[in-house]
Amino acid sequence: MKAAVMGYGTIGSGVVEVLQVNRESIAKRIGEEIEVKYILDIRDFTGSPIQDKIVDNYKIIADDPEIKIVVETMGGVEPAYTFVKEMLEAGKHVTTSNKALVAVKGAELLQLAREKNVNFMFEASVGGGIPIIRPLLSCLTADVIEEITGIVNGTTNYMMTKMSQDGLAFDEVLKDAQEKGFAEKDPTADIEGYDACRKIAILTSIVSGQQVDYEDIPTEGITQITAEDMKYAKAMGRVIKLLAVSKKTKDGYTVRVAPYLLKSSHPLYAVNDVFNAIFVHGNVLGDAMFYGSGAGKLPTASAVVADMVEIAKNVGKNLPVEWKPEKLILSDPGKMQNRYFVRTTDQKESIEAVFGNVEYVEVPDISEEIGFFTDAMTEETYEEKSKQLSKIVQMIRVI
Amino acid sequence: MKAAVMGYGTIGSGVVEVLQVNRESIAKRIGEEIEVKYILDIRDFTGSPIQDKIVDNYKIIADDPEIKIVVETMGGVEPAYTFVKEMLEAGKHVTTSNKALVAVKGAELLQLAREKNVNFMFEASVGGGIPIIRPLLSCLTADVIEEITGIVNGTTNYMMTKMSQDGLAFDEVLKDAQEKGFAEKDPTADIEGYDACRKIAILTSIVSGQQVDYEDIPTEGITQITAEDMKYAKAMGRVIKLLAVSKKTKDGYTVRVAPYLLKSSHPLYAVNDVFNAIFVHGNVLGDAMFYGSGAGKLPTASAVVADMVEIAKNVGKNLPVEWKPEKLILSDPGKMQNRYFVRTTDQKESIEAVFGNVEYVEVPDISEEIGFFTDAMTEETYEEKSKQLSKIVQMIRVI
Repeated sequence: MKAAVMGYGTIGSGVVEVLQVNRESIAKRIGEEIEVKYILDIRDFTGSPIQDKIVDNYKIIADDPEIKIVVETMGGVEPAYTFVKEMLEAGKHVTTSNKALVAVKGAELLQLAREKNVNFMFEASVGGGIPIIRPLLSCLTADVIEEITGIVNGTTNYMMTKMSQDGLAFDEVLKDAQEKGFAEKDPTADIEGYDACRKIAILTSIVSGQQVDYEDIPTEGITQITAEDMKYAKAMGRVIKLLAVSKKTKDGYTVRVAPYLLKSSHPLYAVNDVFNAIFVHGNVLGDAMFYGSGAGKLPTASAVVADMVEIAKNVGKNLPVEWKPEKLILSDPGKMQNRYFVRTTDQKESIEAVFGNVEYVEVPDISEEIGFFTDAMTEETYEEKSKQLSKIVQMIRVI
Repeated sequence: MKAAVMGYGTIGSGVVEVLQVNRESIAKRIGEEIEVKYILDIRDFTGSPIQDKIVDNYKIIADDPEIKIVVETMGGVEPAYTFVKEMLEAGKHVTTSNKALVAVKGAELLQLAREKNVNFMFEASVGGGIPIIRPLLSCLTADVIEEITGIVNGTTNYMMTKMSQDGLAFDEVLKDAQEKGFAEKDPTADIEGYDACRKIAILTSIVSGQQVDYEDIPTEGITQITAEDMKYAKAMGRVIKLLAVSKKTKDGYTVRVAPYLLKSSHPLYAVNDVFNAIFVHGNVLGDAMFYGSGAGKLPTASAVVADMVEIAKNVGKNLPVEWKPEKLILSDPGKMQNRYFVRTTDQKESIEAVFGNVEYVEVPDISEEIGFFTDAMTEETYEEKSKQLSKIVQMIRVI
């Protein structure tokens, strides 16, 4: 079976490597070998062992009837969208690791794949090597999924872990993450939560069966988290994690990306370093969690190649995925219920006048301020109440 | 689509409940409703709402051409085997939660299902509600699976957690587990590791593609674990868990069920109470873990019903599973490498004469004995060396 890889960056080259390293076991599974015939990349690969596979025009791939599977690992919406669309229209199966593309064009590309009786798969777009898309589509199918809460960004999880364990400041851990290759030169997409936002949009689309626009999801990153916050967390036996939260309530789906304070009994509490994990609550299953390498060359390539195997086992058949292009109106984020942890230099009298009897947290080496937990209340109520205190230093949601 | 449930015990009644509770969402997924037409049970259900579905002869189900899916939740090898075989021969799809049946007859029943162009599914037989069979068969397919290590028995994990957290003795926690309904009156299958043994046999069969006989797996339960062992574990920042371990080495598969000392950085460390989790290491994926409710009425029924959904989406098609009846010869368990934690009243001089420079562990309120870690060595070597010490109190493997 002949395949093509579009984009020979980290993931794309990982896909070629995985197909090579596990050639035998993969061939045994699908009954024949997968051969990469083309690699689309505009860079110069003179002298590289893949040189003879390089093409610089995607039409060559689209026009070759031998090609059955196309891997898209270029990233970004364009030109990936144009290329993928043309591959599906040419009757080729596609798998992608590109969350930006899937979040925006997933429903449309799935519909096109269905019309052409091929498959559009994207296991690697969320959680890297962790199986989560296919488990949601074909394992947790007896349940109504009531919650998905994920640590879905390895960069920020590494940074939060490092800040928590080593007591370092945000800027220091960012520099460290960049030096280690865990954060990009421009880390905006990770540290502002944009990456996590796209991933939870995809997961919510999958479980709701409708299009969730990522722009509708209130998103905060980790740039406001300080070494002092970590001291409080530690004193409480808690950790701070960047979470992507999606909940089904009687009013519809409510979704948010933000740093949260987790207690030690939460399954996500012990998910450290660059690892990712996705916690799922089903109405009959109860709690489940999927844990693993959420990024990195080979783990992500492993998920892409697993899609290729699934495609190879289903050539000539579209595996239907319920994700309609109709936009899902998310429920008002202001109505989302939470407890809040607040740090302030206000006096206890003022705090209690606004929030009633609260649970205080004091940390020995942070003087002149106090921390407290509010009761559960909506975002709107918290907003309103917190305006009555003048000296709030920090607010972090509690889970 | 008409279905039948054989055995209306905890899981069987859970299946009927899940089909009822999530009737709408399940019908939406498969395009039609699943209706339970028969329930096979020899007990009297006079006055129960399911009374009119009860049949006491499995032939009624086998002979009814309307029945497409049969659920087997009776447990035990016979008569479940006879019934399931006849259902497959009659062209009906079967899903089971019965690990005893799957461990012994899985390969044969899969082969029969293939001949009859139907499916034999058993997601619920390992890990209860945790998706693990289908992820291994259709998600982690790009990898060579090099290790599966599971906490796959909820009863013993509850007991180990309770002993660890409350400092109780084995007999006390067993009594507590029985009172809470987490352990059966005859707890042998759980506490002696027989249940975990069958589950790791199934998982190893799935990844190796051959029949693993559970009788070949060295199996120790938790009956020898004491409150003193837990004190040592705590002092080391470790926990003791009953693990089912399956590793692929250059000499083949090596499998064992035994209590192990886990360090705090291991993903299974924080899996407490009745929860189960299965850690998987793939050669390109790296580490992954699947966590959730490993037992219980609704979680297990959730997995059975998910199989029914998968079957309903694939009526008229056999989804091939590689599990040949040829017996897999496991590699010599004596060659398995481990570190060992040993408690003894021997003198340090004697210990060092046998094991060299070891790492000692002393616990303040346990006097007159000492604990130590050996270096990594084969089981055979440890056996031989340990015979040279006369006063060993306990040995626990280290992971």
